[in-house]
Amino acid sequence: MKGNVIVGQSGGPTAAINSSLAGVYRTAKDRGAKKVYGMLHGIQGLMEEKYIDLSEHIKNDLDVELLKRTPAAYLGSCRFKLPDIHQDMATYEKIFAILNKLEIEALIYIGGNDSMDTIKKLSDYSILTGSEIKFIGCPKTIDNDLALTDHTPGYGSAAKYIGTSVKEIIRDSYCLEYEKGVVTIVEIMGRNAGWLTGASILAKGEDCAGPDLIYLPEVTFDLHKFRDKVAKLLEKQPSVVVAVSEGIHTSDGKYVCELGQAVDFVDAFGHRQLSGTASYLTSFIAGELGCKTRAIELSTLQRAGSHLASRVDILEAYQVGGAAVLAADEGDTGKMVTLVRHSDDPYQCGTEVKDVHKIANDEKLVPKDWISKDGSYVSDDFITYVRPLIQGDVSPIMVDGIPRHLYRPITK
Amino acid sequence: MKGNVIVGQSGGPTAAINSSLAGVYRTAKDRGAKKVYGMLHGIQGLMEEKYIDLSEHIKNDLDVELLKRTPAAYLGSCRFKLPDIHQDMATYEKIFAILNKLEIEALIYIGGNDSMDTIKKLSDYSILTGSEIKFIGCPKTIDNDLALTDHTPGYGSAAKYIGTSVKEIIRDSYCLEYEKGVVTIVEIMGRNAGWLTGASILAKGEDCAGPDLIYLPEVTFDLHKFRDKVAKLLEKQPSVVVAVSEGIHTSDGKYVCELGQAVDFVDAFGHRQLSGTASYLTSFIAGELGCKTRAIELSTLQRAGSHLASRVDILEAYQVGGAAVLAADEGDTGKMVTLVRHSDDPYQCGTEVKDVHKIANDEKLVPKDWISKDGSYVSDDFITYVRPLIQGDVSPIMVDGIPRHLYRPITK
Repeated sequence: MKGNVIVGQSGGPTAAINSSLAGVYRTAKDRGAKKVYGMLHGIQGLMEEKYIDLSEHIKNDLDVELLKRTPAAYLGSCRFKLPDIHQDMATYEKIFAILNKLEIEALIYIGGNDSMDTIKKLSDYSILTGSEIKFIGCPKTIDNDLALTDHTPGYGSAAKYIGTSVKEIIRDSYCLEYEKGVVTIVEIMGRNAGWLTGASILAKGEDCAGPDLIYLPEVTFDLHKFRDKVAKLLEKQPSVVVAVSEGIHTSDGKYVCELGQAVDFVDAFGHRQLSGTASYLTSFIAGELGCKTRAIELSTLQRAGSHLASRVDILEAYQVGGAAVLAADEGDTGKMVTLVRHSDDPYQCGTEVKDVHKIANDEKLVPKDWISKDGSYVSDDFITYVRPLIQGDVSPIMVDGIPRHLYRPITK
Repeated sequence: MKGNVIVGQSGGPTAAINSSLAGVYRTAKDRGAKKVYGMLHGIQGLMEEKYIDLSEHIKNDLDVELLKRTPAAYLGSCRFKLPDIHQDMATYEKIFAILNKLEIEALIYIGGNDSMDTIKKLSDYSILTGSEIKFIGCPKTIDNDLALTDHTPGYGSAAKYIGTSVKEIIRDSYCLEYEKGVVTIVEIMGRNAGWLTGASILAKGEDCAGPDLIYLPEVTFDLHKFRDKVAKLLEKQPSVVVAVSEGIHTSDGKYVCELGQAVDFVDAFGHRQLSGTASYLTSFIAGELGCKTRAIELSTLQRAGSHLASRVDILEAYQVGGAAVLAADEGDTGKMVTLVRHSDDPYQCGTEVKDVHKIANDEKLVPKDWISKDGSYVSDDFITYVRPLIQGDVSPIMVDGIPRHLYRPITK
């Protein structure tokens, strides 16, 4: 590379997104980039000329290792949708003026569906105007809902956290006995795609029966069938543990969480923020069955739990970061790096690049035939798919009993 | 030892209670006990003659290691208060008949305040009736509220989980920017004692500012002062993270969680089950300040997170289990094993035994001078106290990407 590279992070944070940042930084440096800039809070920050020189922050090999183990977006993230090019040329002129001033040769954007929309628009504008800047997307999302890639970095670590936590919750739930039994409902992220909730199946093994019921948002949720299933389970066991996606909805299209309370937040892409599904269902079950209930939301812990990251995930995240720089250096633009699985066992997986136009704004859902017919469990195919992605550990670098992260002071 | 030993687990589960069970089993076997029985669901199960022969479950050294790493009560737990002896002799006659039938020489009960009440009553009855059975209590509670012991096994692992998770939550909270800032409220267990909530301070270090505010139940909570503090913090930083105990209450004695909703559950010891504190406070702050908010309850994860256990904690739990058997074998009864700290740094700690009459039903709270004057933070003394208890790791034994536990099938 002859010029400079700039990298940004966008969308919801994960335990692996900083490993991709480390991969971008290392490969760009290795391939001769003079400067590697990091935009602060993604494209939104770049438009305000907020960026840093990454070499002032990543000073040595230990910093690279710490960055790989630091959850959430080191550079800060954003949820910002670029306007359509023909409607607002000024925005693009502004961004390209900044990129040109910084002598940027390649812009790498680490993110999910919405972020790939950004790459698409920037590369379209670049082609329209004859700019030589390359734009490459680097996949990231715990939701695992990106099209054309076998899976997304960030998903494996979240899946490992969910499988482990649900197993610990199951163990805990059997300790105390209640006259009419106890029902624990674990709420897991996933608006439309059930990849995360399905990962609760990983709790199952020789030493654990796993969750009793698993409800994904891909299929309609029936409140009364649910109650009957729970009641039947309580006849033979003292504890029932249920994993539900935050996005499960009834046949009339209403989110379960909306049945009980108002939804108060809609983000820039029009996505509603959901929560309260487990809380609503526990009230419902307690009322209907009179048993003890407990609602547990895994909340942001499931995306930030880097102390329990998957080694496969962290290494793949690093790898796609490097592959993004390589693609740009080889002349690609308007592409996203994808992960291509060659085999499940032994697990083998490599990277390719694909046209971002085929990816942006398209959601990959759990295949219907990976969900049981009555919509209350996932199949062995699901396990075969997810199991390789949670293998291996990345030992946290412990300082005084707590994992150390790479730190960037943030003030207003 | 010439006879048999029986061990039970009682009260809320922890990540370390099974390590104490392992310690009891090993030491009893080493000292010549013929059989080591485990009562299922504590004294309540014993009264129904529900018990197992532990050697049929703990078959080798690997099982001992797995047991140390298995969260929650392997034997099942209970919350059962024995009646006063003079009011109900029949209950005691029944228990002692079972113990005599099993040729029990020592009964070890692993639990918290309420469980020590059980040891007290059983040993009192034993003295009254001239029984030679020894009764020893083994401390356990994540709440760390037992009197006369420096700390309780289970607390260190919960503290490590809380410190680590709060740090990850803080990291996550700074990713996305919101116009009026974001306030995250983390709800931590602790009805009357703030030991767990105080442990959120462990998130603080060279690489993290730690939680901005920490509210313990030992002091009165003022809703409007809280709002003003948050508003002031939001002037200079984009994210504010607050750790609150589930048991914080206002000056009129009302729990904060009661301000918003009904409390629906009271256990056998008359303790109300609290939750919804963070949820109430986020609604309040959103309404008052118009900022984005997020409520996170660490819920049972904080007591079941054995994948992140503290090595000091797990080893001390094992040690007190062994010390309990030793005390009984040396003729003690009506005693609880305590941990006695000799120094903070280097940390040195040993065991003693103390009269259970001085312990039962007495709650140890966080000293007032370890809480800041305005009640919104903890002091360096708190850190000095808790830091040694979270040192070192107990690597989970990973099988196919998920921690393996020692399994006992449980049906109705």
